[in-house]
Amino acid sequence: MLDAVPGRRRNAPASASEDRRSRAQGGAGPEGLLRRYREATLAEIKAVLASRRLPLYDMMHYHLGAPGPGGRPAAARPGKMLRPTLCLLSCEAVGGQLQQAMPAAAAIELIHNFTLIHDDIEDASQSRHGRDTVWRVWGEPQAINAGDGMFALAHMALHRLLEAGVVAPQVLEVARLLDEACLALCEGQHLDLDFEERLDVSCDDYLAMISGKTAALMGAATAVGALLGKAPEDTVGAFKEFGRRLGLAFQIRDDVLGIWGDAAETGKPAGDDIRDRKKSFPVVYALGRASENDRLLLRRVNSADTVALEDVAEVMAVLERSGARAASEEAVACHVDGALACLKGLDLVPARRRELETLALYLVRRRR
Amino acid sequence: MLDAVPGRRRNAPASASEDRRSRAQGGAGPEGLLRRYREATLAEIKAVLASRRLPLYDMMHYHLGAPGPGGRPAAARPGKMLRPTLCLLSCEAVGGQLQQAMPAAAAIELIHNFTLIHDDIEDASQSRHGRDTVWRVWGEPQAINAGDGMFALAHMALHRLLEAGVVAPQVLEVARLLDEACLALCEGQHLDLDFEERLDVSCDDYLAMISGKTAALMGAATAVGALLGKAPEDTVGAFKEFGRRLGLAFQIRDDVLGIWGDAAETGKPAGDDIRDRKKSFPVVYALGRASENDRLLLRRVNSADTVALEDVAEVMAVLERSGARAASEEAVACHVDGALACLKGLDLVPARRRELETLALYLVRRRR
Repeated sequence: MLDAVPGRRRNAPASASEDRRSRAQGGAGPEGLLRRYREATLAEIKAVLASRRLPLYDMMHYHLGAPGPGGRPAAARPGKMLRPTLCLLSCEAVGGQLQQAMPAAAAIELIHNFTLIHDDIEDASQSRHGRDTVWRVWGEPQAINAGDGMFALAHMALHRLLEAGVVAPQVLEVARLLDEACLALCEGQHLDLDFEERLDVSCDDYLAMISGKTAALMGAATAVGALLGKAPEDTVGAFKEFGRRLGLAFQIRDDVLGIWGDAAETGKPAGDDIRDRKKSFPVVYALGRASENDRLLLRRVNSADTVALEDVAEVMAVLERSGARAASEEAVACHVDGALACLKGLDLVPARRRELETLALYLVRRRR
Repeated sequence: MLDAVPGRRRNAPASASEDRRSRAQGGAGPEGLLRRYREATLAEIKAVLASRRLPLYDMMHYHLGAPGPGGRPAAARPGKMLRPTLCLLSCEAVGGQLQQAMPAAAAIELIHNFTLIHDDIEDASQSRHGRDTVWRVWGEPQAINAGDGMFALAHMALHRLLEAGVVAPQVLEVARLLDEACLALCEGQHLDLDFEERLDVSCDDYLAMISGKTAALMGAATAVGALLGKAPEDTVGAFKEFGRRLGLAFQIRDDVLGIWGDAAETGKPAGDDIRDRKKSFPVVYALGRASENDRLLLRRVNSADTVALEDVAEVMAVLERSGARAASEEAVACHVDGALACLKGLDLVPARRRELETLALYLVRRRR
């Protein structure tokens, strides 16, 4: 399957520790890693979608990057596929066979994308990857339903594990890990939506929210990868915690990009999360630590019916002044360190361990 | 578990063929049958929800009938629980152990209810069972997410099959049947929403739509019941077709009630489906068979931006004139006959077979 992945290496700096096999697999720099499993994962998703011809599936293909109605072109820059990459790399790191984890990687990417279709409705987001969101093209009712269909499809993808030679009790264990993550995801999303209307969100509240919304699925991705790589139970547990901490770091970095990111790189307007009154890490930090006057300003903007462009600029200034940006970046680094500590002492394939570390460190400095 | 179900028999006529065991289980009349497994199924759902305390779960409890915020009382008349009843009765009909099918019955009821939460948003339905729908209480974003959570919870419910002593390959087979039904359900719902904007819907289109939207889950419910009752493969197939045909009959009857039903009994305003421009069986029939003038009227009302009360009355008159009501009732009877034919020649527990027949015939004449 990996034959389908050419070894293109665009903007990926070479590293002395990179071995030959890594190069053949798309380069061991973070961009190369994120490309390595892309074609194989997409092929697996296509296999799940094969023979499904109804217009419902056109919506799913569009969300995954295919051209859409009204002459909408294919997505210039599709999703990062971070979660399947983490799953497959974890499987290889413990010495497992890639093919046995592939159906799970596809299921994880489908789960992630089902949540994006619904998130875009819930947040009234107009665009994703530089194109109209699914609900903007087909309307909310059809978009809700397409998300549900993709959730069901993710489960269908898991059944292909049996064909890949995974035994039934292990397939069920994978399903349980992912189902638990999906439920945690909904718990986190509930809190995220609830926090929009609230001003009394503490750092602990925030952590509970992103533990569900983001970290649970990333922890499940690495745990499932290790499990399907036939790692012992305690190694699976360590991988779960590795993915979970990485997820916390990833989300806080995402919060930073949602406020200070370059729209051309992130694909969404700068300050978008402020307009949506998202209780992101920087905002929650500033709500607790900013000066009296600045906190009043944050409260005023967060209680207003609409958030004007000037308000966004003022909030950004408050966040800078309160040290929220620096604190966010420290929090990202702290969770990445915590993640990497989980891998210490485990018996892993050396090249794959280095790649997991490379990927983790990349999350600290990513710009999209 | 059945000890929890008292033998209350309210308005359920006695039948000569009813045996004692049936009486002890809540009566063998259709109303009694629909009551028989209610408490045990609800107890199983409660067990799945146990220890889950976040406000997200309050939304689920409310949808399932519990009191809600703002002093909203418990639902006076909760759902019929037809699908778990079909599942459990099918299990017992093939001589299976009820306890082994209970987690699947709970999962099926949760799947059905997740689709109702989302359907109510997609159709902008204000009330269900005489109370505000979930999105009316908590808003659309939270309601979309609560539906997703209930879908995830349905899968968690399935994992309890292992604890009930079902072996892993069979748990996976149950999951596969239900996941396929969920996908078919979304396919059908896509068509249903699509048809709202269309006038060229044929009877075949309509059948494809309800085969997914309604029949697939009912077919999965009876198939899963038989499977968990340890029936041979061809019997499971016959039960699947039994449930599927019953589902077609059920939906067409639902269409009739959606137009001519008594609002006090159905819990939703008469003519509601006409206002929503639903391509129900009577409307599709009339679009193909009514007189030229009547068809023009149907097309005008179905193309209008809003449907006035007078329009609803006019459409109802057209449906009566075109024979759509009688044709609908014939179609219901035809599919119930087809369903019952599936059970012929199978080796079933006699009392349970009679009850399956009683339940099927009840669907022809139900008023809610």
